[in-house]
Amino acid sequence: MAVYTLVSDENLEAFLAEYDVGEVVSAKGIAEGVENTNYLIHTERSHFILTLYEKRVAEKDLPYFLGLMEHLAGRGIRCPVPVHGRDGKALRRLAGRPAALVTFLDGVCLSRPQAHHCRALGETLARLHIAGADFAPRRENVLGVAGWRPLFERSAARADELAGGLVHLITGELDYLEASWPDDLATGVVHADLFPDNVFFIHDAVSGLIDFYFACTDAYAYDLAVCLNAWCFERGGELNATKARALVEGYEMARPLDRADREALPMLCRGAALRFLLTRLYDWFHTDDRALVRRKDPLEYLARLRFHRGAGSPASYGL
Amino acid sequence: MAVYTLVSDENLEAFLAEYDVGEVVSAKGIAEGVENTNYLIHTERSHFILTLYEKRVAEKDLPYFLGLMEHLAGRGIRCPVPVHGRDGKALRRLAGRPAALVTFLDGVCLSRPQAHHCRALGETLARLHIAGADFAPRRENVLGVAGWRPLFERSAARADELAGGLVHLITGELDYLEASWPDDLATGVVHADLFPDNVFFIHDAVSGLIDFYFACTDAYAYDLAVCLNAWCFERGGELNATKARALVEGYEMARPLDRADREALPMLCRGAALRFLLTRLYDWFHTDDRALVRRKDPLEYLARLRFHRGAGSPASYGL
Repeated sequence: MAVYTLVSDENLEAFLAEYDVGEVVSAKGIAEGVENTNYLIHTERSHFILTLYEKRVAEKDLPYFLGLMEHLAGRGIRCPVPVHGRDGKALRRLAGRPAALVTFLDGVCLSRPQAHHCRALGETLARLHIAGADFAPRRENVLGVAGWRPLFERSAARADELAGGLVHLITGELDYLEASWPDDLATGVVHADLFPDNVFFIHDAVSGLIDFYFACTDAYAYDLAVCLNAWCFERGGELNATKARALVEGYEMARPLDRADREALPMLCRGAALRFLLTRLYDWFHTDDRALVRRKDPLEYLARLRFHRGAGSPASYGL
Repeated sequence: MAVYTLVSDENLEAFLAEYDVGEVVSAKGIAEGVENTNYLIHTERSHFILTLYEKRVAEKDLPYFLGLMEHLAGRGIRCPVPVHGRDGKALRRLAGRPAALVTFLDGVCLSRPQAHHCRALGETLARLHIAGADFAPRRENVLGVAGWRPLFERSAARADELAGGLVHLITGELDYLEASWPDDLATGVVHADLFPDNVFFIHDAVSGLIDFYFACTDAYAYDLAVCLNAWCFERGGELNATKARALVEGYEMARPLDRADREALPMLCRGAALRFLLTRLYDWFHTDDRALVRRKDPLEYLARLRFHRGAGSPASYGL
């Protein structure tokens, strides 16, 4: 975890007394998520996750994220549900941080998802998009195409240390993607970070989605492109076309893509690969060595980006 | 945590298939304990802690620790109970580490224990000593009086960086304690590390003891002296005599101290303070800055040591 806020037993007890959840029988800090501090809380009645939002999550966005989880849960998406206190509030403060209590989800993350998991994920993603369609609040994707160049500028001076020619390659990508990025695709609520870490399974079925702290309003097909990058490449960097097809077929079982979405997929995948390359690059150079963080390798996403640059059409993905 | 071994879902599933505990519904790495990697596992039937023993725990000692927990649990001490696999084994390997599955204990640690908690702790400690009396295996206290000088030698060159005169003071303590340390006290199984972190409470009653990885054969009153150091000093370093008396009274409710034990308490407290001063000093200079560890301040134990040096008799503790 990146940051870890310790909560004393007295402060925890006082915090939980604001909720009607029964008495605490256990509270453990868990090593999940790199953005926030999480405690797994057992009460007499149920299990919960208590999240303390650290500075990487903007406090002003929390009502959007919590409201979205509640909205989606009300439409059958299995995600953490914010618990409201006796005063009606779901968001309060603990140990100097914004904090919320949400329901606990069963399930485990997969280290090596198979094609049938990609299919299940695709269908779940489409159902998330459908369930979010009538969620009124909007949130701009601050890590969308307009945010990439300013983000890159914060790492550009050192990027070539990591791989020769990286600055040249990324600059060319930014020029190309800014000029060509589609703005006519179907948009709505997207998760925008649906990596295997954020998807729980039980018996090969998706049992829950977590970590909605990058959710925003963007093209649905971009969310699918994020998943294609995160779920459908082998460790050596090769595309697994069987998984890509399973992901998209699963998606279309619940929400068929229209022609523009499908045609845009190679471009959206290219943008999604650049987005994760850029955030990993930033973290690579800006993470304090002492922080409790496992830095992720930016070059994994350079390899994906190269694949997408060479992809002419959906057929390059086996679609 | 000091070290963190990641376990893949497939390896976890294969490991747990060796046990008759039902299917896994959730597995979370928890930030508990600085010595080992711990996962909180929910199965269909119950909750467990899965511990992967990192290198600070000697593998040859694991049968002693696991056997002791099982022995104590069988005599009514609430502690983690090692779960045996279908093959009868409680200790196996996972991700290259020795690993064991133990039962989960409810309860929370107290950040600021009060006198009545010290009383409850004292009684529990005495019950642990009684329950361990017929545990046949023996384990030397490697952090006992004979181990302190070699331990200090590994930090001595830098100790004065932390506080002027520290080398002189510690050398004098070692000379004195080695010459005067009692060897005629009642001995048996001791926990030897019963800090507030290792004691769970529910409704002011002790609900469980954990972390038996320093347990060994030593003087019972030494275990009480460790607790007196860990539970009965204020944050400013002053002795809280009410808590000290409550601790000892609680202990004697279940197991009266004999005269020699009681008279030896100031010396044992002095030794216990030196033991924690020395291990913290060692960690202070030998912990990699990048390790995921919160170093503990050695000087807290220097203050305690100074108190004990000035204590003439049990009366100095309000006893």
